[in-house]
Amino acid sequence: MPLPLITSPSNPRVKHAAALRESRRRRKSGEFLIDGVREIDRARKSGIRLLEVYARAERGAQGFPTVPGPGKDLLDELERAHFPVWPVEQSVFAKMAFGDRNEGIVALAEAPRRDFELFESQLPDAPLLCVLERIEKPGNIGAVFRSADGAGVDGIILADCGGDLWHPNAIRSSLGTLFSVPCVTAAAGETIDWLRRRRVRIAAAICDAALPYSEIDYSGAVAIVLGSEDEGLTPIWHDRSKTGTDSAAIVLPMRGIADSLNISNAAAILFYHALLRRESNRP
Amino acid sequence: MPLPLITSPSNPRVKHAAALRESRRRRKSGEFLIDGVREIDRARKSGIRLLEVYARAERGAQGFPTVPGPGKDLLDELERAHFPVWPVEQSVFAKMAFGDRNEGIVALAEAPRRDFELFESQLPDAPLLCVLERIEKPGNIGAVFRSADGAGVDGIILADCGGDLWHPNAIRSSLGTLFSVPCVTAAAGETIDWLRRRRVRIAAAICDAALPYSEIDYSGAVAIVLGSEDEGLTPIWHDRSKTGTDSAAIVLPMRGIADSLNISNAAAILFYHALLRRESNRP
Repeated sequence: MPLPLITSPSNPRVKHAAALRESRRRRKSGEFLIDGVREIDRARKSGIRLLEVYARAERGAQGFPTVPGPGKDLLDELERAHFPVWPVEQSVFAKMAFGDRNEGIVALAEAPRRDFELFESQLPDAPLLCVLERIEKPGNIGAVFRSADGAGVDGIILADCGGDLWHPNAIRSSLGTLFSVPCVTAAAGETIDWLRRRRVRIAAAICDAALPYSEIDYSGAVAIVLGSEDEGLTPIWHDRSKTGTDSAAIVLPMRGIADSLNISNAAAILFYHALLRRESNRP
Repeated sequence: MPLPLITSPSNPRVKHAAALRESRRRRKSGEFLIDGVREIDRARKSGIRLLEVYARAERGAQGFPTVPGPGKDLLDELERAHFPVWPVEQSVFAKMAFGDRNEGIVALAEAPRRDFELFESQLPDAPLLCVLERIEKPGNIGAVFRSADGAGVDGIILADCGGDLWHPNAIRSSLGTLFSVPCVTAAAGETIDWLRRRRVRIAAAICDAALPYSEIDYSGAVAIVLGSEDEGLTPIWHDRSKTGTDSAAIVLPMRGIADSLNISNAAAILFYHALLRRESNRP
């Protein structure tokens, strides 16, 4: 029996879903929205628990909702699984959907655990990690996930990055890799304690460091640590006496007139370089 | 004698300047706008000819305009040079300025030549070049310039990239490096002819290529060629018989669930890798 068409933007489900565009509401409810077929698909395959799906439908439409284009297969699959998919009218859909994506499907999902216990269980021995400190723009965070996914980075720690991870811009710019790359959100101090306990070496990108990024050893358990473009990393990251673990301050040479790279570009360069070096060291 | 305060948004100068937000008008007039103090400064230092500057002023303000913050030094310098700086009221300024930058200064500039003759004269022997084919988003083009500037790429060829180079988003995401990195806009066929004549080897990034990017020789005159995320490069780029010059199709390994990197991230990885290899080969 298909669910009834929702026609009123003041329907309580719709109001709840639309309110999840706000970070505060996401944190309070432990739920968030996913826009876009590819992103919803990647979330499901990464073990994110969907709670409800909303699909745009014509006024007077009957039966299980269907949408044109790439969402059709997803809805077919959900129908076979008897998953709750609510058909909603365009005006209602517009209240929940984000930006200009026009795929006609939005999912409401349960925010998954993102703590060190789970994180550890997801990592291989001697992982290559990334730590982002105080990166606030969701689009930048998502872009780093996308590069990390491509390069094969084993996990990401978001240290003092504020807000929550489930901002629509973060999901979008990550292309859904936000769901698949293991990650944890933590305070910087807590992160350093964990790195020390796990004996992870630190490669901290600092714009006035003397050591080129290409001159350190990337083998074993290593964390590439990046701060914001404007402020850089807080000093704790490149002081071995403070981190209590092996740390190096490294620099990406800047040969032109600008004084920094975009954070996701810097991350991409370091990730691919580290992976290349790790691979060439393998027996 | 300072210029008089412009208070009317229908002032012909203001209308002309505001119209330059449209690509069509930029192409027709050969002029464009630069927002932001850093960008204006980098344009000047790169030899871009400014025609006029507009600075936000209070109603009733007298004398040479001044703005708070980083623009003050720039305006002081322009005053000493007797450069035409027009004070404009907030409502007028809002018509000309782009986005949410709030530095109070906009410059009108002459679009510089961007042809192969000038380009050649700006290149060293055996340059490392970048070719972008059919990249349309100004923000992506600007981001590639920023990475090219950082890595020390010698020049960029925009092949069939459509539009004009002087879109405000391109300028902004380049941080003004759009003015300093030598570049040329051309058709793809023309670009290949030029590369062949100059005996520049081609490293074409293709998502289904077999050869990892790390396994080719980056010494000598080399062009790293990148296409759009969605469509990739047109086939002409990776067929030696078509390019008539030494070409290799290379791939950036994708180890996760996503099937491509953001164009500026892919460019950044290849630029820094190539430069590292070129440096380590130097005597």
